[in-house]
Amino acid sequence: MSRFASFADLRTACLDLPEGHKEVAAEVARRETRLTKPPGSLGRLEEAVAWLSLWQGCNPPSLDRVEILVFAGNHGVTAQGVSAYPSEVTAQMVANFAAGGAAINQLARIAGAELRVVALSLEEPTADFTVAPAMAEAEFLEAVSAGYDDVSDEADLVVLGEMGIGNTTTAAALAGALFGGGARFAGLGTGVDDDGLARKRAAIETALARHANVLDDPLRTAAALGGRELAAILGACLAARHKRIPVLIDGMVSTASVAPLHVLRADALDHALAGHMSAEAGHPLLLQEFGKKPLLDLGMRLGEGSGAAVALLVLRAALACHTGMATFEEAHISDKDA
Amino acid sequence: MSRFASFADLRTACLDLPEGHKEVAAEVARRETRLTKPPGSLGRLEEAVAWLSLWQGCNPPSLDRVEILVFAGNHGVTAQGVSAYPSEVTAQMVANFAAGGAAINQLARIAGAELRVVALSLEEPTADFTVAPAMAEAEFLEAVSAGYDDVSDEADLVVLGEMGIGNTTTAAALAGALFGGGARFAGLGTGVDDDGLARKRAAIETALARHANVLDDPLRTAAALGGRELAAILGACLAARHKRIPVLIDGMVSTASVAPLHVLRADALDHALAGHMSAEAGHPLLLQEFGKKPLLDLGMRLGEGSGAAVALLVLRAALACHTGMATFEEAHISDKDA
Repeated sequence: MSRFASFADLRTACLDLPEGHKEVAAEVARRETRLTKPPGSLGRLEEAVAWLSLWQGCNPPSLDRVEILVFAGNHGVTAQGVSAYPSEVTAQMVANFAAGGAAINQLARIAGAELRVVALSLEEPTADFTVAPAMAEAEFLEAVSAGYDDVSDEADLVVLGEMGIGNTTTAAALAGALFGGGARFAGLGTGVDDDGLARKRAAIETALARHANVLDDPLRTAAALGGRELAAILGACLAARHKRIPVLIDGMVSTASVAPLHVLRADALDHALAGHMSAEAGHPLLLQEFGKKPLLDLGMRLGEGSGAAVALLVLRAALACHTGMATFEEAHISDKDA
Repeated sequence: MSRFASFADLRTACLDLPEGHKEVAAEVARRETRLTKPPGSLGRLEEAVAWLSLWQGCNPPSLDRVEILVFAGNHGVTAQGVSAYPSEVTAQMVANFAAGGAAINQLARIAGAELRVVALSLEEPTADFTVAPAMAEAEFLEAVSAGYDDVSDEADLVVLGEMGIGNTTTAAALAGALFGGGARFAGLGTGVDDDGLARKRAAIETALARHANVLDDPLRTAAALGGRELAAILGACLAARHKRIPVLIDGMVSTASVAPLHVLRADALDHALAGHMSAEAGHPLLLQEFGKKPLLDLGMRLGEGSGAAVALLVLRAALACHTGMATFEEAHISDKDA
């Protein structure tokens, strides 16, 4: 039994969202101006602290319990030859996560976060969306609910990542459906050649034409053109908003996953920060649609939540400055223009 | 007695530079391609590991011992009203560093680095370079030598930062002298108003005209238009190259400090990575002259080595991935196009 009974039920949950804690954020901003540095000189580190406090409602904010949730799914569209790797790599990488051998394992450890990997019916790929909707309503809602229920009430921050061979095609199709422009969000993914990219674009164009009748509904679109791990990320991001837990989004797939929330309500992702700009071609275009400025731009394009996990280190640096620095008064330092 | 007896002696040391360890870097690159990710998908994290191994000559590279060196100096040009803060703040901030209350203290702790602060004759500011050379040859060489001798042989990486009221004026003057274009490198520093910026530009233009006779010599230029902390950073960066220790450069002042090395020999800063792009207006222009692409762009403009210290966290993430990840063989994962 899913947490959400229907598209309509989920839609209601997507529209009924709490705001941040503005008074707490204002308190935190007041301390910020008294720290021993010219006002604003820590740039986005200061913004990050303000944002954490706005959503956590804590002064100072905390990063004691950070959860990295990596959702994995398989995609019927791989039948169209859209990926450089075979589908079985999804399950093999899930095993690699369990064994501690993937990039995200190392990044979670160094960033002091708890990593949880959720494999979503890997043995049962979504339908090839060039010929049918990727998921039926019930399948989609089940994946959304799984993601929703994976966010702990106690989390201080959630990092959302994914693994799924074929899912940059899925993400580009979903982005094209939501924001228009056909296959313009398609990129090289794990590293396809020119022919692979052409197949990817063709699959996306075919899918957009086939599912034209649902494109006015972001949630039906996410079911028809998405994937289980994308649906779970949407659910987790929604849960975090309802719990007022800040979220770090990762790259192309993670961003496309939460795009339906933005289309349904323009401020739905105010609790989410773009951890990085991926090297995947569609990601900058997608972030532009959101009006989100990524924290990092390191040419990464791995997924797994890896870019957002590196961004978590920047948040830790920001918080360390905010909580550890002396004020002008404490340090007996002459203030500006004194 | 300075390590360098004359401008000519220092110049020789700046021109006689060792190369990196190419064979070791090639070994490290070979492992990189076998890790469980699409080749290149960690972007600049992969480049950073290659760069660390090139200069350290170690496979894998190490970040066990990282030194953040913060040099502090005072500037006669503050008499021209170029800073939003009074000169005594330099010494007050040095006391704040000692007490652990500054941003760099928090960042050094979180990044696992040793912080050393070196105050350079704070009670004796350099001469106001609008009326005389900032430093005589002997004073300049003494500061360069102090920086040179502060780099430990055992350091795995050195982060170079600074503190000095007035030193964004100094840095902009030095950059204008080395790369042309008058006061185009001047920015708001710690936060001057429009009048302050006008005074800053005027001071730089006056200084460039007054010292026109030395501008064909990068080291004499650094003495006439620089400052003690800038000279020390130059010395430390040179020492790191001779010892083949990689360096993270910080923002506007740190970058201007090492610019004479680049002008003397175009590859002199190959062992140095630009940790971040500062919000100080002249920094992007200066990095452009160097052809250096900064690792981070977080709108920071504090100095103290703070941007580079945040970049150190990215290097740690990069190294953790390289050393901790499984290979395709170890994880039994199907390779690309299998």
